[in-house]
Amino acid sequence: MKLSKIAQIIDCRMVGEEDVEITRIAGIDEAGPGDLTFVSNRKYVSHIPRTRASAIILGEDIPPVKIPSLRSEDPYLAFARALEIFFTPLRPSPGVHPTAVMDKDITIGENTSIGAYAVIGEGCTIGDGVVIHPHVVLYPGVSIGAASVLHSFVIVRESCRIGNRVILQNGVVIGSDGFGFAPTKDGTFYKICQTGCVLIEDDVEIGANTTVDRAAVGDTIIRRGAKLDNLVQVGHGAQVGEHSVLAAQVGLAGSTRLGNGVWVGGQAGFAGHLEVGDKAIITAQSGTSHDVPSGTVMSGSPAFENTVWLRAVAAFPKLPNLLRKVRDLEREIERIKAARNTNNSK
Amino acid sequence: MKLSKIAQIIDCRMVGEEDVEITRIAGIDEAGPGDLTFVSNRKYVSHIPRTRASAIILGEDIPPVKIPSLRSEDPYLAFARALEIFFTPLRPSPGVHPTAVMDKDITIGENTSIGAYAVIGEGCTIGDGVVIHPHVVLYPGVSIGAASVLHSFVIVRESCRIGNRVILQNGVVIGSDGFGFAPTKDGTFYKICQTGCVLIEDDVEIGANTTVDRAAVGDTIIRRGAKLDNLVQVGHGAQVGEHSVLAAQVGLAGSTRLGNGVWVGGQAGFAGHLEVGDKAIITAQSGTSHDVPSGTVMSGSPAFENTVWLRAVAAFPKLPNLLRKVRDLEREIERIKAARNTNNSK
Amino acid sequence: MKLSKIAQIIDCRMVGEEDVEITRIAGIDEAGPGDLTFVSNRKYVSHIPRTRASAIILGEDIPPVKIPSLRSEDPYLAFARALEIFFTPLRPSPGVHPTAVMDKDITIGENTSIGAYAVIGEGCTIGDGVVIHPHVVLYPGVSIGAASVLHSFVIVRESCRIGNRVILQNGVVIGSDGFGFAPTKDGTFYKICQTGCVLIEDDVEIGANTTVDRAAVGDTIIRRGAKLDNLVQVGHGAQVGEHSVLAAQVGLAGSTRLGNGVWVGGQAGFAGHLEVGDKAIITAQSGTSHDVPSGTVMSGSPAFENTVWLRAVAAFPKLPNLLRKVRDLEREIERIKAARNTNNSK
Repeated sequence: MKLSKIAQIIDCRMVGEEDVEITRIAGIDEAGPGDLTFVSNRKYVSHIPRTRASAIILGEDIPPVKIPSLRSEDPYLAFARALEIFFTPLRPSPGVHPTAVMDKDITIGENTSIGAYAVIGEGCTIGDGVVIHPHVVLYPGVSIGAASVLHSFVIVRESCRIGNRVILQNGVVIGSDGFGFAPTKDGTFYKICQTGCVLIEDDVEIGANTTVDRAAVGDTIIRRGAKLDNLVQVGHGAQVGEHSVLAAQVGLAGSTRLGNGVWVGGQAGFAGHLEVGDKAIITAQSGTSHDVPSGTVMSGSPAFENTVWLRAVAAFPKLPNLLRKVRDLEREIERIKAARNTNNSK
Repeated sequence: MKLSKIAQIIDCRMVGEEDVEITRIAGIDEAGPGDLTFVSNRKYVSHIPRTRASAIILGEDIPPVKIPSLRSEDPYLAFARALEIFFTPLRPSPGVHPTAVMDKDITIGENTSIGAYAVIGEGCTIGDGVVIHPHVVLYPGVSIGAASVLHSFVIVRESCRIGNRVILQNGVVIGSDGFGFAPTKDGTFYKICQTGCVLIEDDVEIGANTTVDRAAVGDTIIRRGAKLDNLVQVGHGAQVGEHSVLAAQVGLAGSTRLGNGVWVGGQAGFAGHLEVGDKAIITAQSGTSHDVPSGTVMSGSPAFENTVWLRAVAAFPKLPNLLRKVRDLEREIERIKAARNTNNSK
Repeated sequence: MKLSKIAQIIDCRMVGEEDVEITRIAGIDEAGPGDLTFVSNRKYVSHIPRTRASAIILGEDIPPVKIPSLRSEDPYLAFARALEIFFTPLRPSPGVHPTAVMDKDITIGENTSIGAYAVIGEGCTIGDGVVIHPHVVLYPGVSIGAASVLHSFVIVRESCRIGNRVILQNGVVIGSDGFGFAPTKDGTFYKICQTGCVLIEDDVEIGANTTVDRAAVGDTIIRRGAKLDNLVQVGHGAQVGEHSVLAAQVGLAGSTRLGNGVWVGGQAGFAGHLEVGDKAIITAQSGTSHDVPSGTVMSGSPAFENTVWLRAVAAFPKLPNLLRKVRDLEREIERIKAARNTNNSK
């Protein structure tokens, strides 16, 4: 496809030779002749002169380059749309595979694909255009909204509700029992029935092998547009707000509620029963043990305000030296006091 | 059901109107007319005046409230039992689904349910009343004790033994190969056969997508009544003691042994070959690299005694300020010494 | 088997009675009569006098012991080879199980085993001697090299390539979509197609429930001989170098590249777009946010040089005391200055 045509499709300003023929999108270091590449992360601007790509997608703020460029206020989004020009996503054909086990009272929409060895429980509802890959299990009473995609080995447990255009990557577990046990006097535990459900709202995507537990009472909720990466744990009764983003291996303990637009870095953890305000940013590996006000940036384990944390961790390697200095100071002061006493007693 | 009847079933002291009709158990903020709610976590006592519930389960120590209450020394346990009154747990009917693949020499108890597409290996033994949900795989030689429940996508690998009344949530892997490799002189690794088994004793519950590895020699053991949350890693040859509790995303490296009644917070990690004494408490995100005496509380990464840690982390944000103060002190002392020298040389 | 025969097979120097009959390999504390045990970890040398084993594998550097011993420069490797004498690994018989769903245009090598309910997508290539356990799903276009083993509930997504002699433990997900979303002006996210693949080179082993994501462009690569433990997250476009070792629950964010022979401790995390040099060692629970030079040892979150970190964490518990000391010093200096002023004003 001609570069000028791509510029038109992805809504970019064309700079340089328009007739370059593009056959692929590729990373800046891997790209070769015929490839369109991109830079959206500042870190890679210095790689531009070395690229062998035939053209590049760039922000409007990047200085002129030697190869033809497609300029955009939002080069990352332009790149995302360029990718779609050359990519044919996997799309199983509609229909129910003969090996799928369909229990009674199931409602299925149009253009739905249900793969080999899927097991769909009694009373499930599956919306239009849903793709259920092979080896997905829906327990009884589950509903899946229109145009959602469930990859192989996804589980949705009894009575959980999945919205429209939701993507569940492989191995996601929705609605496993929450971790609820009442300690008894003899040191054993009494299992608390987890009678609640999980509600996944529209446009959510959940990464591979992530688990979202059901609660004793009430719903565990992942709100509209939230994105969860792989191996995340969402405890029973927790809520993730709209368009919030949780990186891989994050853990939310029970009943904790993240607001809207919250960003959480990888491996961060939250204690139970917390409220995290809208647009809070929680950096990677931090451990949040108190409520977090809206818009604040928190870091560390236990977490505190990020700007204070940045100074504290910068100071931390100097701590042994500081210990020595304070010992020295104590000795100096002893010497000063001793000298003064000697002087005074002269 | 009348409130007085519930009081009787869950063994609570009735305070107030006995004839209230209850139809559901609900959380304090979600509850409405006809609902029985509860407070067991101190954090929610302040929510009581605002609840719309018709009645509430409370500890004996909570002051009088306006709505009818069911009082108990153990309100959490009372709540657990109240839930069961209104809840019908999912219970597949007994029998072997025609699609289950049953290898030879399998022993199956009475009232056992084996779901669609289960694969039961040669020589497996399955006790009375076991529920094996669809898509469970038992490798050859596995035994499952009576009344255990294995959810979809549970794997039990060759020759592992599961006790009675064990619950394995979805995606649990029991008996995958331990991470054992002997480094060789040429920088590669030689795989060490993992010839041991995993033993899960009675009354254990294991959360979704948790993994418990088999060892090169000897058993990896989860002892009676222990509870493991989601995405936990139990390394090869490790042992978890009776009635110990591991929150989500905890990691135990190989050969580490937790005693009985140990509590481990989320995302905590343990180095290999450690001994952790009975009733030790290891707080969330800590990293234990040494043996832990019984009954101690450990925190931090690397972990040390919790009371010391609490003071240290409270002091940590003050570290940059401390650095500046020490620099100031050094200058002060230089000035004092200079002044003294000047005085002395006068 | 006679001990002398074992010595010969595993290439050890025989010390003591040669005719002892050995029937099993066992751990030092569990071993009894007829067992051959071993010590490779220094921590267990003190257990030798108490063992009930009939013989022991030991390093050449360990002092003489009372029972017959097999001496080796590399006792861990000798132990690994001894285990194989008495162990018959699980090996399903060759053939395609009648319940396997085989799509069109699949190429299968010789002596390959494909288990019950496996689903093999269109155009897949499966090499000689491959073992595909029950309930494995290969999406279309996947290739699996010779002698690889895929355990139950392994997923390999569309077009990913697995090398020779690769072992994927249960629940491994290869090629799920990377976590790529372009933020839009209205606060929502635009999903970026993940058009790349995952390449797993020869002799790699990956632990249970580990996830390796595909990237928007280019390959995510696990290089020859690397070993990944359970519940590890490899983000999109990341690379793990040859013979590198990642312990359980490690997380690599997108585009980060680990060199060859890198060792990473459990629960460590890496930010995105980093370069970690060959033979670097990253200790458990650390959080690496910058490039790491070859051969360095890094610790802490955020991580810095290990020897500095060791001193810093040793000093950390003393921080509250240090704060108090500095307050005391400030008072002392105030007193000294006050006294001097008094003296000077006399």
